[in-house]
Amino acid sequence: MLIGNCIVAQSGGPTSVINASACGVIMEAFKQECIQEVYGAQNGIEGLLNQELFDLRREDIRQIELLKHTPSSALGSCRYHLPSLAEDETTYKKIFEIFEAYNIKYFFYIGGNDSMDTVHKISGYAKQIGYSLCAIGVPKTVDNDLMHTDHCPGYGSAAKYIATTISEMAEDANVYKSNIITVVEVMGRNAGWLAAAGALAVKDNEKLADLIYLPETVFDFKKFHKDVETLYKEKGKVLVIVSEGIRNAEGGYIAEQQAQQHDIFGHTQLGGVGQALGNYIMHHITKRVKVVEYGILQRCAAHCASETDISEAYMLGREGVKEAVKGNTGCMIALHRVGNKPYTCTTLLVPLEKVANFEKKIPSEWINEDGNYVTEDCIEYMKPLIAGECYPPADEGLPVYTKLEKHFIGKKL
Amino acid sequence: MLIGNCIVAQSGGPTSVINASACGVIMEAFKQECIQEVYGAQNGIEGLLNQELFDLRREDIRQIELLKHTPSSALGSCRYHLPSLAEDETTYKKIFEIFEAYNIKYFFYIGGNDSMDTVHKISGYAKQIGYSLCAIGVPKTVDNDLMHTDHCPGYGSAAKYIATTISEMAEDANVYKSNIITVVEVMGRNAGWLAAAGALAVKDNEKLADLIYLPETVFDFKKFHKDVETLYKEKGKVLVIVSEGIRNAEGGYIAEQQAQQHDIFGHTQLGGVGQALGNYIMHHITKRVKVVEYGILQRCAAHCASETDISEAYMLGREGVKEAVKGNTGCMIALHRVGNKPYTCTTLLVPLEKVANFEKKIPSEWINEDGNYVTEDCIEYMKPLIAGECYPPADEGLPVYTKLEKHFIGKKL
Repeated sequence: MLIGNCIVAQSGGPTSVINASACGVIMEAFKQECIQEVYGAQNGIEGLLNQELFDLRREDIRQIELLKHTPSSALGSCRYHLPSLAEDETTYKKIFEIFEAYNIKYFFYIGGNDSMDTVHKISGYAKQIGYSLCAIGVPKTVDNDLMHTDHCPGYGSAAKYIATTISEMAEDANVYKSNIITVVEVMGRNAGWLAAAGALAVKDNEKLADLIYLPETVFDFKKFHKDVETLYKEKGKVLVIVSEGIRNAEGGYIAEQQAQQHDIFGHTQLGGVGQALGNYIMHHITKRVKVVEYGILQRCAAHCASETDISEAYMLGREGVKEAVKGNTGCMIALHRVGNKPYTCTTLLVPLEKVANFEKKIPSEWINEDGNYVTEDCIEYMKPLIAGECYPPADEGLPVYTKLEKHFIGKKL
Repeated sequence: MLIGNCIVAQSGGPTSVINASACGVIMEAFKQECIQEVYGAQNGIEGLLNQELFDLRREDIRQIELLKHTPSSALGSCRYHLPSLAEDETTYKKIFEIFEAYNIKYFFYIGGNDSMDTVHKISGYAKQIGYSLCAIGVPKTVDNDLMHTDHCPGYGSAAKYIATTISEMAEDANVYKSNIITVVEVMGRNAGWLAAAGALAVKDNEKLADLIYLPETVFDFKKFHKDVETLYKEKGKVLVIVSEGIRNAEGGYIAEQQAQQHDIFGHTQLGGVGQALGNYIMHHITKRVKVVEYGILQRCAAHCASETDISEAYMLGREGVKEAVKGNTGCMIALHRVGNKPYTCTTLLVPLEKVANFEKKIPSEWINEDGNYVTEDCIEYMKPLIAGECYPPADEGLPVYTKLEKHFIGKKL
């Protein structure tokens, strides 16, 4: 068993529960006798390289516990891509000089694909130079696109927010007699899991979202026109969900067509694929169209977090530390679904080479033949992930989030 | 005391709690012995004119109770403007023929400005023709712009949603080291109450929204440029809130400038004032800008409703019925704030001629000198309105909303 200090850090886009994983790592690290100091790295690997480390043992334990309900990355995040060893060994040398100076034996990195790649490279280099390090990746991503884990923490809460607000918007659309087409744009550049979550919005066994367009299928305006117009004539009220990453047959992003639009001064205009489809509908089907873009709301809506998601994020943090203490390294701590009735998930370790730089998309058998919805199997898969409510504590009507003091320990090199 | 039947109806844009008021009216009407049948009118006055009335006594009482947590207008809404008597007496005659045929003695209309105008006209005509009717207006509007009520049901929940999500977005903006300007567009064509609610988002006594632009002040791009650029240089992360209704010195809506923008084919583009400001920032200050438009999300986010708001909406419904039974008519049942410490509100009756066709804007003394924020007095006014959580019941992770059976009673004329 390695005895020494530990670093926990976060990376990539924030989610509603990435802090719950940090909470799990920190709480378990506090418990383990072989882990001495528990440091947070400010803004992920960037902070590590700058020796911006803070002492988590000095934080008020209530603030650590509040991490469970605080959206976004409380330790700070980054979008740093660690170059390969062949490209740049100096960065690796620097990291390990820092590890040695601070007696780091445990490294926990909570993040998505790029972060898993970072842990993979760091643990590989440790082995190569004979440095004793247990490095574990803890998954998170609203995109749900990591391989070899049943699903990713962060996804369930974002999915719950989407399904909840789709339910609300469907109620809203029904108040008037007049017809309306609502286009909702959700995140998902290459994988359509978030858009698929719209299929969870159901009232009295009736699906509230009518059409779902995914990056996994080719988007064709003619087909879209027919889909929407048919339903508009039939139902009058149509709710369309679209992934930001839908592409045409040539592989071009539909959002980029929108980006080529200019104002009267020739300036490029902001706006995404939701607007592009909204504009299309306005000019070809009806002027009665509304566009809703969740934007960052969907990844930080902790006020609507899934209890399942928070518990699992926390569990992965704790289990990651337990596995590291056993001597495991170069792995991601992943979720394994034991069953759906009742829904149970345990953890397992997955070698990082199987995870880093792969993307899990919605399998084609979970997309309907028309390419505009997901199947019941997909819905069954998603359903338990949004289960349970877990509201943040509130004060004067507003959620209370953690405030870490971040006592920086000062540079040693 | 009038003995007869009652109609309850909803009108105007939906809110998170307009159904809570309907619930209050219905529950109290059920209790009152002088009220025999309790009818709902489908889509407000439109349904009344079409004799689309349904029997609320036949609904499952649990579904009536669920109205308290269901966003949007469960009875159906309309945007019908009742013409003046001088313009069109036939509509009035028709309404009262229907009232007589169905033995209607009580009329409760839940809505905003236009709806109060409708109740005013109907009660006036009843007096003129000597028809015994008690007609009461029950206020609702996310815009908070009705006169002679301390505030409007619907506003508190929308304000809570805005303040909550601003808190979440501020957490989100802080994860990276890199700078970002976030522009958040909120509803409010003439009154800036919803934008002002952004000032409620506070962490550790620090305001999370930096600038708030209201329709009550003149919007000037030069001033805006200076405001934003100064803060961007100083803080790096700037959060701007803007009312959809901001206007330039000539009274022109800034949103209309956006609407004049066209795509490469010369088509008009969707997009509001948030985008217009986002585009401005992108071309004049920094490309690091994000635009969030809540759109309909802000008026139907029942999953984030204010307990104060729900209770008051319900109370107004009940008190409206009690006042009608006492013989009052031609009035709006309004909220009177007794005090802030502790916050207490009672109800009072306001003659509708003082309400209909007036708009309550943010008083100038509640707007700072720079015209880009609200004062502490304004914040003190808003604060109690978002207090308390009141989550909808959930099933499989999703809110459960009411499903009325609507047993239509058939046309009598």
